[in-house]
Amino acid sequence: MLTFVGLGLYDLGDISVKGLEYVRNADTVFLEAYTSRLMGTDTAAMEAFFEKDIRVLGREDVEQTPREILECAAAGRVAFLTGGDPMVSTTHADLRMRAAAAGIETSIIHASSISSAVSGLSGLQNYRFGRSCSVPFPAKGWFPTAPIETIAANLALNLHTLVFLDIQNDRYMRVPEAIAVLEEMAEKRGIEPPALYVGIARAGSERPVVAAGAGANLKEMDFGPPLHILAVPADLHPMEREYLETFAGL
Amino acid sequence: MLTFVGLGLYDLGDISVKGLEYVRNADTVFLEAYTSRLMGTDTAAMEAFFEKDIRVLGREDVEQTPREILECAAAGRVAFLTGGDPMVSTTHADLRMRAAAAGIETSIIHASSISSAVSGLSGLQNYRFGRSCSVPFPAKGWFPTAPIETIAANLALNLHTLVFLDIQNDRYMRVPEAIAVLEEMAEKRGIEPPALYVGIARAGSERPVVAAGAGANLKEMDFGPPLHILAVPADLHPMEREYLETFAGL
Repeated sequence: MLTFVGLGLYDLGDISVKGLEYVRNADTVFLEAYTSRLMGTDTAAMEAFFEKDIRVLGREDVEQTPREILECAAAGRVAFLTGGDPMVSTTHADLRMRAAAAGIETSIIHASSISSAVSGLSGLQNYRFGRSCSVPFPAKGWFPTAPIETIAANLALNLHTLVFLDIQNDRYMRVPEAIAVLEEMAEKRGIEPPALYVGIARAGSERPVVAAGAGANLKEMDFGPPLHILAVPADLHPMEREYLETFAGL
Repeated sequence: MLTFVGLGLYDLGDISVKGLEYVRNADTVFLEAYTSRLMGTDTAAMEAFFEKDIRVLGREDVEQTPREILECAAAGRVAFLTGGDPMVSTTHADLRMRAAAAGIETSIIHASSISSAVSGLSGLQNYRFGRSCSVPFPAKGWFPTAPIETIAANLALNLHTLVFLDIQNDRYMRVPEAIAVLEEMAEKRGIEPPALYVGIARAGSERPVVAAGAGANLKEMDFGPPLHILAVPADLHPMEREYLETFAGL
């Protein structure tokens, strides 16, 4: 049995009650630690809380050599832990299909996800979001402009955009850098940069930071430690505006 | 202190560990029971599990006479329970703003949400969803066609659509009825109806039903008890197709 268990947004307390129960009764516990991170805790604290040894997996363990995971799942109850809600990443979908092909039963225990948390924290209505995009760290000779095109296409349809920020090993993109990158993309493509952003830091923690404003303002703000995420709003409905004025300093 | 606590998708075990702790220590517990429903439990079971009396709220209690909620929150710790992830509904956003205007501290404890669970259950990649829509129960002389137009616009951009199904008191729209309504909308607007649907029932439960196929097939399927939700996929990526073949009978 291979069960994908979501850890939720931020710390140990974000797992669901049924997720916790499953993990505590699992025979083997793996932690997928490369597509997302739980910033409010660490592996040692998880092991104490779950009363289990945890085997931390890198991308290669899951994608190149999943045999060990599948062997454990064929023999007993395996909990495969992921930050956020599981299965959003294709690497999880791939592992679940390999398990099914090997005749192993699979299931998912859901948890909180940044995709829906952003609506609650920002007041931007969930049905008004168009497709999302991701801002990668620019690399030498590589500066894709697809994200600003997605944002521009959504704005043309009067839709909000959720903008995921890159994670590379222990490097986490922050809101100010993401805005600077988006503005450079806009200049490169001859597109007007967005007039308004909503930056969110540490969703799921006791004190998340949520700030709305022009790029020039948010680029000067200290949002504190990661993870950060960004939303680019379309024209605000009156209630969305009032919510951002009340809770995000607009 | 007014804390919006998400109950998650299906039953008592879907609340987060920190949500449960907050509710058990709250002075007053309200349950918002009109925008969503937890089908795998009931109020009596919640009261036993939370070790608290629960005051069930209808739409009028929250929108017309929120004074009692705010008075409790000014005096002590209030847990405001909602199905799914809180604050997605404008009625929650409105209550949070009223609390802030009254000088009451507010916070959100997130939980699993159908918006992200659909990606995991269907394998449809979350960044490929366009804006979502809702199919209402048709009423006499009232048959809006906006949902099929949203779906058509997303398909033209090669984006998936998440389709929420109506809840009216104890009446829950099912997948087969929703497809029939969408097909009627398509005919009325002279639009080609979608070639493929993914129907999902009881997300978050131990045995969710996930089925992909043509409208003619899914309209004949018994998905079992509510809640149901629908996705209309754009052109499938190879991995999305394989996932639906493996887990949704495509």
